[in-house]
Amino acid sequence: MLKRYLLAPGPTPVPPEVLLAMAKPIIHHRAPEFAQIFGEVREDLKWLFQTTNDVLIFASSGTGGMEGAVSNFLSPGDKALVVNGGKFGERWGKLCKTFGVQVIELKVEWGHAVNPQAVADALKKDPSIKAVFVQASETSTGVAHPTKALAEIVKLHDGTILVVDAITALGVFDIQTDAWGIDVVITGSQKALMLPPGLAFVSVSEKAWQMADKTKNAAFYFNFKKERESQVKNQTAYTPAVSMILGLQEVLRMLKAEGLENVFLRQTRLAHAMREGAKAAGLSLFPKESPSDALTAICSPDGVDGQAIYKNLRVQYGMTAAGGQDHLKGKIFRLSHMGYMDSFDVITALAAVEMVLKGLGHSVKLGSGVAKAQELLMA
Amino acid sequence: MLKRYLLAPGPTPVPPEVLLAMAKPIIHHRAPEFAQIFGEVREDLKWLFQTTNDVLIFASSGTGGMEGAVSNFLSPGDKALVVNGGKFGERWGKLCKTFGVQVIELKVEWGHAVNPQAVADALKKDPSIKAVFVQASETSTGVAHPTKALAEIVKLHDGTILVVDAITALGVFDIQTDAWGIDVVITGSQKALMLPPGLAFVSVSEKAWQMADKTKNAAFYFNFKKERESQVKNQTAYTPAVSMILGLQEVLRMLKAEGLENVFLRQTRLAHAMREGAKAAGLSLFPKESPSDALTAICSPDGVDGQAIYKNLRVQYGMTAAGGQDHLKGKIFRLSHMGYMDSFDVITALAAVEMVLKGLGHSVKLGSGVAKAQELLMA
Repeated sequence: MLKRYLLAPGPTPVPPEVLLAMAKPIIHHRAPEFAQIFGEVREDLKWLFQTTNDVLIFASSGTGGMEGAVSNFLSPGDKALVVNGGKFGERWGKLCKTFGVQVIELKVEWGHAVNPQAVADALKKDPSIKAVFVQASETSTGVAHPTKALAEIVKLHDGTILVVDAITALGVFDIQTDAWGIDVVITGSQKALMLPPGLAFVSVSEKAWQMADKTKNAAFYFNFKKERESQVKNQTAYTPAVSMILGLQEVLRMLKAEGLENVFLRQTRLAHAMREGAKAAGLSLFPKESPSDALTAICSPDGVDGQAIYKNLRVQYGMTAAGGQDHLKGKIFRLSHMGYMDSFDVITALAAVEMVLKGLGHSVKLGSGVAKAQELLMA
Repeated sequence: MLKRYLLAPGPTPVPPEVLLAMAKPIIHHRAPEFAQIFGEVREDLKWLFQTTNDVLIFASSGTGGMEGAVSNFLSPGDKALVVNGGKFGERWGKLCKTFGVQVIELKVEWGHAVNPQAVADALKKDPSIKAVFVQASETSTGVAHPTKALAEIVKLHDGTILVVDAITALGVFDIQTDAWGIDVVITGSQKALMLPPGLAFVSVSEKAWQMADKTKNAAFYFNFKKERESQVKNQTAYTPAVSMILGLQEVLRMLKAEGLENVFLRQTRLAHAMREGAKAAGLSLFPKESPSDALTAICSPDGVDGQAIYKNLRVQYGMTAAGGQDHLKGKIFRLSHMGYMDSFDVITALAAVEMVLKGLGHSVKLGSGVAKAQELLMA
């Protein structure tokens, strides 16, 4: 018998209350009862996104929201500045190219956050740039980019929008969509929203909607304007993922009951304990600056294969973490603490990592990282 | 947000697979489909009880099984030897008195196991004793009585049966009903059987059935003979707890897949790690001998109120343990590791106990107990 522990950076564990909500009988999506629920979650999403803009809901993974954020706002030949500091930054580039957008890539060394000045310089150098694409939290490296500073810069350019992939950020740390002036914010259901994968969410500012009026790119399933026309009437253009919406209703109620500040405090506290615990166990963190509170990327110690750590966590201890991607494969492993997580998830993760490392012959003092996390997580 | 951790000695956590099985639509209990399932669980219960005797199933808590084990075998005026080494030993005495049975009490100091010689002596002194009542695992003290040795003694007396409350023992450690010759073995659903409370199970030997023919006590709901007549036909005398039986089917499939020896090994390993972890954290165990592998009773350190430990575990860390009962209230606290438990449940429990003790001002080195458990639980 092996219990399962899900510590990958998505999908994350789903609370029992949410599983039960999703097990309710299917409501027809054109029935008044559904419209009422849809209206409730639309309002609550605005609260979560800290915006008065509409937050569109799609039956897709987060990448669907990212695709729409390219195809709805930019036309073939338009220029976009893409911050590429990891696998998901790379994805912005690929998406732009798919829709004929000229990519000006701002390459950031993996493990680092983008320097806002570099974005300011690029926009000054080429004022025809229509959009800046960035990750609030780059999941492949565990780094948070400085979203607020970027918003302040992009705001100064009337013809440029800021598009933020907040898939592993929204609901983890503060993203003030309206106050900071972020035009497009995207997230998915399977991260801090504690749901299974299957929903994408996109908030769109007035500035971005105006740009959407001029796009020459085709969008059907991810047509934001068409979707908005339906969703303001508490309907969807195409069939919504009904059970997921029922789960979302429960998630948003839970988050509201906890309070947004308390959610952020909890997530920050867990992230801090995980980082300090890892360091106390003699490990070093992969991010050189600005670690994301969503997940912790840890360097495999010298002589230990990161993929072996990842594999042994799963096989020996039932724990699903994540390995490194591309050139980081074998060099790092990643543990998430976003969403439905508490102190003992962090303690369990650190205990398992210590046990795996010792099992692989690495010299580690059992309990050393755990003790640090216990100290930081005392009530 | 506070996640919940259930480490009380029953009810214990229910595996998701079992919750799902119990969420299946209700089958009518006189339908052929139910009879087929009931037949399957009856066979599997014999495997679990290590017996060829029928194992009766009742919709009741374990105490219902205990009541039947008195009322079905003994008559008013009959004599019974009751081993009383804790709250549940006491309960045997109360049950016997309720049904007019004369109780010869073998008082065992709490924290100790009964000396088999004392039982042999009592039976020799009074051969008219019709039954010996004992707990295989006394939940109030965390002590295991020597069931096998008692069976060897009682077997020598043709007119005496051995009745074992195995409510926190069966499925935790080895109870060889037939090979050791235990006449009546009782358990409940909410312990090692990983189900919600609501089912009692009783196996009855041929020697006990013969005694049941002569009883003058009244039994209706817990009438074993009547129940057997129905259950051998895969029916029940009264309405069975259908959803619980569906869950039981899944539990028995899981236990069979793991294998009885592996189940015992896992439970022993967890119990050992919990005990050694507690000691490494500077705590002392309450049992003076023969600790039960179902749960660990730990003494509150000098100057620390055991009820405060119990309360703070729940309030500060979402963990339900158990306090001490009667004169042990405030003196001990108890943590269960039976049923659906693995290494990280023990590690989590020890981490939380250390954090609570430190929070209460007790000098404890964070991570000290955890590290010992990690060492013992390495894959």
